[in-house]
Amino acid sequence: MPKSNGVYLDYAASFSANPSSIHSFGMNAKKKLENARKEIADILGARQSEIIFTSGGTESNNLAINGVVWAWHDNNKKSDQNKILPHIITTNIEHPSVLETFKLLAKRKLAQISIVPVEENGIIDPQKIKKEIKKNTVLVSVMYANNEIGTIQPIREIAKEIRHYKKLKSVSFLHGLASRGEENRGPKKNLLTSVFFPFFHTDAAQAVNYLDLNVEKLGVDLLSFSGAKLEGAGGIGVLYKKKSVPLANIFGGGDQEFGLRPGTENVALAHKLAQALQITERIKEKEVKRLTQLRDYFINKISKNVINSAIAESLTNYKIVLNGDKDNRLPNNINITIPNIPSDLLVIELSARGIMASAKSACKSGDGKASYVIKAINPKIKETDGSLRFSLGKYTTKSDLDYTIKALFEILTKLKKWYN
Amino acid sequence: MPKSNGVYLDYAASFSANPSSIHSFGMNAKKKLENARKEIADILGARQSEIIFTSGGTESNNLAINGVVWAWHDNNKKSDQNKILPHIITTNIEHPSVLETFKLLAKRKLAQISIVPVEENGIIDPQKIKKEIKKNTVLVSVMYANNEIGTIQPIREIAKEIRHYKKLKSVSFLHGLASRGEENRGPKKNLLTSVFFPFFHTDAAQAVNYLDLNVEKLGVDLLSFSGAKLEGAGGIGVLYKKKSVPLANIFGGGDQEFGLRPGTENVALAHKLAQALQITERIKEKEVKRLTQLRDYFINKISKNVINSAIAESLTNYKIVLNGDKDNRLPNNINITIPNIPSDLLVIELSARGIMASAKSACKSGDGKASYVIKAINPKIKETDGSLRFSLGKYTTKSDLDYTIKALFEILTKLKKWYN
Repeated sequence: MPKSNGVYLDYAASFSANPSSIHSFGMNAKKKLENARKEIADILGARQSEIIFTSGGTESNNLAINGVVWAWHDNNKKSDQNKILPHIITTNIEHPSVLETFKLLAKRKLAQISIVPVEENGIIDPQKIKKEIKKNTVLVSVMYANNEIGTIQPIREIAKEIRHYKKLKSVSFLHGLASRGEENRGPKKNLLTSVFFPFFHTDAAQAVNYLDLNVEKLGVDLLSFSGAKLEGAGGIGVLYKKKSVPLANIFGGGDQEFGLRPGTENVALAHKLAQALQITERIKEKEVKRLTQLRDYFINKISKNVINSAIAESLTNYKIVLNGDKDNRLPNNINITIPNIPSDLLVIELSARGIMASAKSACKSGDGKASYVIKAINPKIKETDGSLRFSLGKYTTKSDLDYTIKALFEILTKLKKWYN
Repeated sequence: MPKSNGVYLDYAASFSANPSSIHSFGMNAKKKLENARKEIADILGARQSEIIFTSGGTESNNLAINGVVWAWHDNNKKSDQNKILPHIITTNIEHPSVLETFKLLAKRKLAQISIVPVEENGIIDPQKIKKEIKKNTVLVSVMYANNEIGTIQPIREIAKEIRHYKKLKSVSFLHGLASRGEENRGPKKNLLTSVFFPFFHTDAAQAVNYLDLNVEKLGVDLLSFSGAKLEGAGGIGVLYKKKSVPLANIFGGGDQEFGLRPGTENVALAHKLAQALQITERIKEKEVKRLTQLRDYFINKISKNVINSAIAESLTNYKIVLNGDKDNRLPNNINITIPNIPSDLLVIELSARGIMASAKSACKSGDGKASYVIKAINPKIKETDGSLRFSLGKYTTKSDLDYTIKALFEILTKLKKWYN
């Protein structure tokens, strides 16, 4: 007699059921995994087969960028001397998992890169992206919303510029074929593929809770996000890849995730991610409204003109600057610079009062240097000025913010003695 | 007043505390992460700073192999024409996450590869590995135990051969310096580094529950394993990297994991992995004994000579072959070939009776082809022969096996009609 739950003799595949196994435990796990994939695809307005599970946002971004670059290399096997490198474009305020990936590809001579600076308000000008596009441009990667200053990028407008460029390229390509009398011969595959370059990728890690994720409306070919920004779904990420995008795998291994991402699938986490994303979608509109109000309440309170006179006096020397566009920013993001006071110190002082804020990206924290994002929008900033980010969320209340504002001014009053 | 558990305003870093944040929530998460790292290091006889968390076994293997290859490229910036490719060695029965990574590096002209065949018993001859080592060999990667046939590789002996090679190389290198009167000038850094090549990596995914993991005793420089083979610890992996091994990161991103593996750390999973590994270590000796007995019981039962006459008669045409060395194999692995019957069919028939077994690696399952591991030890095998793997574990009992043996013979008796 088998145990009521069956006899499991597949421990070598994994301790629990492996969704790539063909026995019934494996099939059930596979079904659960595919359900999660379907639920996520529905929210993105994508096909089920366009959702690739990864280990997180960093891997999703790396797979998107390296994947397109390697697909180009794998299909262009010219001798080394004649090789044209693929060209990729991004902005100077991307998350490190995009920016450092670009720099690594350049360092390793695998791609030419263009890093386009954002404007003073932390927003990229789509025309400046457009100007950088050239014949060998294979990818444009622009984040949906910035992780430090919360500015929302004009994704739809950039997508439009790229579409326009492709249209012109396609027309001139077909024209070229026609003039050589080749319209009936069928163009070479690699030439035709090149018509579809560049592809457009967006890192939607910070957008996932608050902005529209419909990939059709956004006009993106690749979109990354991470479970870490959703409740109870850390340790997993997603890369949406439009069917037509040629993507090479960057890991060698098994055939999982359509051959693009080997490794045993994490069914439990995929399920959690789908659930968390569904909840997020349901409350999105309400949360955006609620958090926008809280955000603006906080910003107004810390603006000099609303500080009560006693505190205001002690703060005469502090000019609090809001980093990033005031309106075109995430509803949950407040990022300020308080000149002359090291950010890390402010974070630690706040933490001592039970308030968890941050100076910059956690991925680059604790090195004592000013954030590269803040430097990008304010090149004159001193290393010691830095920035302070308060990012609100599902459980943030107005009284949390009142307590935080009070604590912040106490800290500033105290630190004023040392830093002036 | 803050909430009793503090005011969390760092949702942009992650929904829960991010261990790279410098506030107290982040510090606590960091402490928990480092405790897990220490506990795992202790079991491996390694330093805490030599344990890198990854998303799983596939990523650990990819990071080890690509990381050493890229470290070589990053330090050898000769012009393309004069470039000597790094050379890497492995066996023909490695897990796809090693074998496919090797092939991808060769395809992309990033490394020269040697794939050494194992013997008929599924065990590699250390002398054959040694013979392949040449001046530009940077890495040897041999799995600790095979995932399909459970054969245990002579890791210590291979390590010894590599050490011997390095010693000779080092002596001849110093001799060369001395003869040029350069012994006091200090050799060039890249020459000196080359003295320490090749490094030795082992994929210990299947070994983790049953074999000694002490990296000093094994003599390895890099060792990978996955939480997926341990109870309740799927979705995380470890790469042990000896301090002296130069490793390049393969993902671009933040500074996590000593700059070698960017991405938000998964504290909960790291903790679970450390706990699961500690439990495994405690019961290892007892489990090895118990499972070895069960394994041999199963093997004896299905051997022709112990089948009762009635069944034996109906099985005259089935010659069950045990794949892989009979003694030098994992205590939990049984892998058999039953000629003329497709493996996938056997898996499905067993599954219908509540028994979860597998035909080959889950990473390569369901394609209807014979396993490349089985082909490696038996080149004459037909595509339709395949193999059947029963892998036992913590909750396997003798009555599970009795039920399985009975079911297997029922299935064979039934299928005999169609497949003879």
